[in-house]
Amino acid sequence: MQIKAKMRAVVFDKKLLMMTDYPLPVAGPGWARIRIQKAGICQTDLEIMKGYMGFRGVLGHEFVGIVDACESSVWLGKRVVGEINAACGECDWCRRDLGRHCPNRETLGIDRLDGCMADYCLLPLRNLLKVPADISDDRAVLTEPLAAACEILEQLPIEASQKIVVLGDGRLGILCAWVLSTVGRDVTLLGHHPEKLQTAAWRKLKTAARLTDIRNQADVVVDATGSAGGLKDALQICKPRGTIVLKSTVASPGELNLAPLVINEITLVGSRCGQFKDALQIMQNFPDMPLERLITARFPIEQAPEAFAMALHAKPLKVILEFGDPER
Amino acid sequence: MQIKAKMRAVVFDKKLLMMTDYPLPVAGPGWARIRIQKAGICQTDLEIMKGYMGFRGVLGHEFVGIVDACESSVWLGKRVVGEINAACGECDWCRRDLGRHCPNRETLGIDRLDGCMADYCLLPLRNLLKVPADISDDRAVLTEPLAAACEILEQLPIEASQKIVVLGDGRLGILCAWVLSTVGRDVTLLGHHPEKLQTAAWRKLKTAARLTDIRNQADVVVDATGSAGGLKDALQICKPRGTIVLKSTVASPGELNLAPLVINEITLVGSRCGQFKDALQIMQNFPDMPLERLITARFPIEQAPEAFAMALHAKPLKVILEFGDPER
Repeated sequence: MQIKAKMRAVVFDKKLLMMTDYPLPVAGPGWARIRIQKAGICQTDLEIMKGYMGFRGVLGHEFVGIVDACESSVWLGKRVVGEINAACGECDWCRRDLGRHCPNRETLGIDRLDGCMADYCLLPLRNLLKVPADISDDRAVLTEPLAAACEILEQLPIEASQKIVVLGDGRLGILCAWVLSTVGRDVTLLGHHPEKLQTAAWRKLKTAARLTDIRNQADVVVDATGSAGGLKDALQICKPRGTIVLKSTVASPGELNLAPLVINEITLVGSRCGQFKDALQIMQNFPDMPLERLITARFPIEQAPEAFAMALHAKPLKVILEFGDPER
Repeated sequence: MQIKAKMRAVVFDKKLLMMTDYPLPVAGPGWARIRIQKAGICQTDLEIMKGYMGFRGVLGHEFVGIVDACESSVWLGKRVVGEINAACGECDWCRRDLGRHCPNRETLGIDRLDGCMADYCLLPLRNLLKVPADISDDRAVLTEPLAAACEILEQLPIEASQKIVVLGDGRLGILCAWVLSTVGRDVTLLGHHPEKLQTAAWRKLKTAARLTDIRNQADVVVDATGSAGGLKDALQICKPRGTIVLKSTVASPGELNLAPLVINEITLVGSRCGQFKDALQIMQNFPDMPLERLITARFPIEQAPEAFAMALHAKPLKVILEFGDPER
């Protein structure tokens, strides 16, 4: 197969550019080139467009694709997802299997490393995970956000009897609520969008629009609102000595009074990416988890500007870019 | 002994008042009246004077005194310190020995309950602890702030090998550094006041004036600065997946970017009062802990306004009010 030396790519360089002549990347030793099948637009992409991380280059870090070039024949042609942090592999963090905290890491589509909203992207081979055949592309493209939700289970001991409240009915909030529902018996998702709360209905997950009567009641509160007000609400809902998981990276939050955190001895846990293997595992263990429902719109890659406009203004749950035939 | 029906009291009612005719309190069932020997001025008292908690009444919650009236003869005449939260004794929190989080609690000199900057104050008998004979009044009056420092050991598993940094060379910062030094081998106290850092010297505790070279290095950071900037510094010093203990209750902090907490998956633990028994125990186990050094000024109770002026403006470590003879 003859591959053109140029490719389609969604580039951010002060503004969003849909390029068709972006240089085709070449995989060095230990790295793979992946032909992208589907890529997701994430809130972080929108934050980058507001200046977050000062990133310039190809956007995107949520994908499913096929390994197209690498030095190892066992990976060639395999359908994969990939951990987004390209760690150095040699520091203390990497040795402890915490490469996502490696101080020398580059991050796909977020920090120095070109992202996956292009026909091809590069990642270290050690970042890749094969996607089991029973997981569809539509599910696999959600591995990264699902892993971010799974991270909570890695960080906290969750007991089935605990009262858990998730704030924010966006995509991450819903995923957190679903993942926590696999362990907890009393999980409530709180949000302001009736149609999103309806989308979230799964198993015994409860949904609600208001905080009524849950002041100082929850053992665990997850703030996935993506807004500065979320933590303030969480501090009201959390019981003394309870735990708040902060999932929102807000670029510039307003004034915040943390006195209730001290007075009620609340623990606030910052929570970011998770491990892809946990996400793939949970997809296999819970094939009825309705992940596909989160995909509210699909665009061919050429229409990336329209897809981003929709993601920015209509606040849909998840917008997917599709790449079609590689011989385009 | 004939007790006058009026007493001296330091009262806050929109402004600070030194009264000599405040009504003498009467202990009801289950409560003790304590004749105060010494009382300490705390940062919280100064915050109350700025409006914190909307408190009106007798100030003060740090004391050592003698039980003067109660229904139980075993307590009469005993030298005591007392937990400051008058809990209901009946709710779930109280049953779990966490009365300091009781939602119905009143708090000595902070919330509804008249405080200890008076000849006499009231506390439930169950709040009292006898002070062992080998602990002086000057040490005993520091039980409450020392307990607040001990609380960190109750909340976190501290390992001897961990790198621990305490921010703030005020009284609480020094106490936290001392308490952590009883467990950790690598504790550094960071502050801007050379004379306070000198006061803090004890055992192998390190002191420093700047953050140089400790960015993302500390396993545990304690913010005892009492200022909004402390948490910002702590987020820089703490290593990924590390823990920050927040001891500062700042009435109105400025803008704070919590993105580093999420990105580095830092755990922020709010930490407030501790258990008096732990503080008394540590005083007995470490008789060389130089607690007395923290008392930088003493005033007779009549000079409370001068004492508060000094506490407010000169930022001393600890100002103590002394009550002298009860037959005054």
